[in-house]
Amino acid sequence: MTTIDRFSSLGIENAPGQQSAGHPTHEAASILVDFSHGDVDAFPPPPGAIEAFHEAFVAGAGRAYSRYRGHSDLLEATAGKIAEFTGAPVDPARNLMITPGTQGGLFLALAALVNPGDKVAIIEPDYFANRKTVTFLQGEVLPVPLDFADASSPGRIDLEKLQDAARAGAKVLVFSNPNNPTGVIYSRDHLEEITAIAEEYGTFVVADQLYSRLIYPGRSFVHLRSSGIASDLCLTLMGPSKTESMSGFRTGVAVGPASILKRMEQILAIHSLRTAGYNQAVLKVWFEEPDGWLDQRIRDHQEILHHMVSLIGKADGARVRPTEGGSYLFPELPPLSISVLELCDLLRTKYGVIVTPGTEFGPQFRSNIRLNFSQDRQRAIEAGEIIAQFVQDHVR
Amino acid sequence: MTTIDRFSSLGIENAPGQQSAGHPTHEAASILVDFSHGDVDAFPPPPGAIEAFHEAFVAGAGRAYSRYRGHSDLLEATAGKIAEFTGAPVDPARNLMITPGTQGGLFLALAALVNPGDKVAIIEPDYFANRKTVTFLQGEVLPVPLDFADASSPGRIDLEKLQDAARAGAKVLVFSNPNNPTGVIYSRDHLEEITAIAEEYGTFVVADQLYSRLIYPGRSFVHLRSSGIASDLCLTLMGPSKTESMSGFRTGVAVGPASILKRMEQILAIHSLRTAGYNQAVLKVWFEEPDGWLDQRIRDHQEILHHMVSLIGKADGARVRPTEGGSYLFPELPPLSISVLELCDLLRTKYGVIVTPGTEFGPQFRSNIRLNFSQDRQRAIEAGEIIAQFVQDHVR
Repeated sequence: MTTIDRFSSLGIENAPGQQSAGHPTHEAASILVDFSHGDVDAFPPPPGAIEAFHEAFVAGAGRAYSRYRGHSDLLEATAGKIAEFTGAPVDPARNLMITPGTQGGLFLALAALVNPGDKVAIIEPDYFANRKTVTFLQGEVLPVPLDFADASSPGRIDLEKLQDAARAGAKVLVFSNPNNPTGVIYSRDHLEEITAIAEEYGTFVVADQLYSRLIYPGRSFVHLRSSGIASDLCLTLMGPSKTESMSGFRTGVAVGPASILKRMEQILAIHSLRTAGYNQAVLKVWFEEPDGWLDQRIRDHQEILHHMVSLIGKADGARVRPTEGGSYLFPELPPLSISVLELCDLLRTKYGVIVTPGTEFGPQFRSNIRLNFSQDRQRAIEAGEIIAQFVQDHVR
Repeated sequence: MTTIDRFSSLGIENAPGQQSAGHPTHEAASILVDFSHGDVDAFPPPPGAIEAFHEAFVAGAGRAYSRYRGHSDLLEATAGKIAEFTGAPVDPARNLMITPGTQGGLFLALAALVNPGDKVAIIEPDYFANRKTVTFLQGEVLPVPLDFADASSPGRIDLEKLQDAARAGAKVLVFSNPNNPTGVIYSRDHLEEITAIAEEYGTFVVADQLYSRLIYPGRSFVHLRSSGIASDLCLTLMGPSKTESMSGFRTGVAVGPASILKRMEQILAIHSLRTAGYNQAVLKVWFEEPDGWLDQRIRDHQEILHHMVSLIGKADGARVRPTEGGSYLFPELPPLSISVLELCDLLRTKYGVIVTPGTEFGPQFRSNIRLNFSQDRQRAIEAGEIIAQFVQDHVR
């Protein structure tokens, strides 16, 4: 693979957060809603985050530097919370590391697992960095479709395709749960079916559960690591960047086998040495939110979700599957007189509404857009009406 | 290369900051001095750093997320400072990015430049991550020795070996200046000799100038980027982590050709998305320290340097080249009855003095240790006396 090929597959022009790059007024008022990521003004971090950071800064030397995998006391304090939340034990000395955001954890995990030429099963649609990271590492992507079109059925990946990939030698399966961009949650039964294939072929499973605390009422969430899979075959990524709005601190965690974490720590040493020493302290307030804080956050998101589903559903032929977990919607638009990239461009330049083209989540999603609806409610509704009308006006 | 081979070359057990990992009391008082990195209690960050961070946090959404390469206003404000300091223009829109620490910048730069099988010229001794990162990227390391033994002569790399490496197809040369671990500064003439070879063979040069603001009186420092090299052949890494003690924020910058920065930004998207949004704000206080702050910092370090050189020089047969820039010493110890790894272990476990074995900087430095003397003066002196006595007691 030439340098040009290698980097052309890593395009970021339309990646979330980048579309506004050519737009000098991005950080000014002309953006109505940036649906490419959540709005931490509308949903601020829980109390105590900045205080924990400040305390670490004042404490000085002992907090500026840590072992690459993180401060021991924070690993210890966090292990118990993660064990309780995920329903399986976590040894803080062996099975946990603090990562530079959940994205940093994903990179480290895949870099520890994927050698050039290795095959990796990737769900489509799924988080854009899964595919890009495997490509960067010169692994081979084996796509496995997720069936999410019928909103009345549980989302399911194509198990036959997964089995084909495993049989072809896929060393790793990586997927997000709740799924980014569709908001699908994998059921216990479905996780068990996936696990059975992974165990039969020895495929290592990386689960990105960044959104696993934002689960809507009536849905249940099962953690891969307590779903029956062998503990040496799975690694879980989480962090307080989304539900808890702490993305600006770039701090997450990885939970998995000691041997893989050891490799991840070796890579972290050259990747960026460690998660910023003071930033690690925000893990203190994670899972320690005031009573009712998380419930309120879920209710608030659910309300925006209802509005967005009904607004975008108004456009003739648009199909919107309601989100089960997380704050993404991935509507399929009807055939339009313009491409989805042109649509994204026009929404941005004419109305200050930024959405992410579906093609970031798999090349075939040329009729989808992704919206992160963790936004100010009124502005999200206004932008939702604009999107629906704009789509309606361009139906072919 | 198998997975095992690949990771065995990335050992971190003796890397700076890690030696205390097996030492449960590390973060307690039993450590007298940790010479593996600087002490930010002895040398705190300049005023305003935590305030800039806090302000960014309070500002909220606009500062939590940025383009991958960093907030536009910070790129603009920083470009002028870097241009003035380095003596060559910096276009903030094309030639500058904010990186997750200088280490993060190093990883991104090498990942953007080195494909599997590519040859990379590496100075020995030099910063341990240069070699490890190239190995991780499956490049081939071509070592080029630095002659620093004679303290009365300027440090010089072996130009014949560099020429051999360039002729053999080295795509990249990466080096630190001031050199980590020896504190050697490359003279203007020597930089021009290096540049002539790089330009003849089209070798791209990455200069890690992390310590370029801590230059001792009587020494002059020339920036590679204004030493006459073609601007499309060089990239400079800097950051406020060392002289300015802001390592706990993991923020640095890379200055280089637009085409390379574009690739680095593509990799940053999967590496960790961006330098933590709020942390980027500490660049506001960089190069804006109060009058006299930097001079005082240099004087304080120079005083400790004098003490350390004379203390460690006391051990029979020890050779210590005084540091020209930065806060590292790399003494060569006389033949001992124990290995340098045993020495490091015993110093740590018996006296709470942590030093880094020379082998982290090149496999041949089995008689050297590295000390970062950016420490509390009294404790550094006490530890220096311990080291000298311990070495003396174990001379073969």
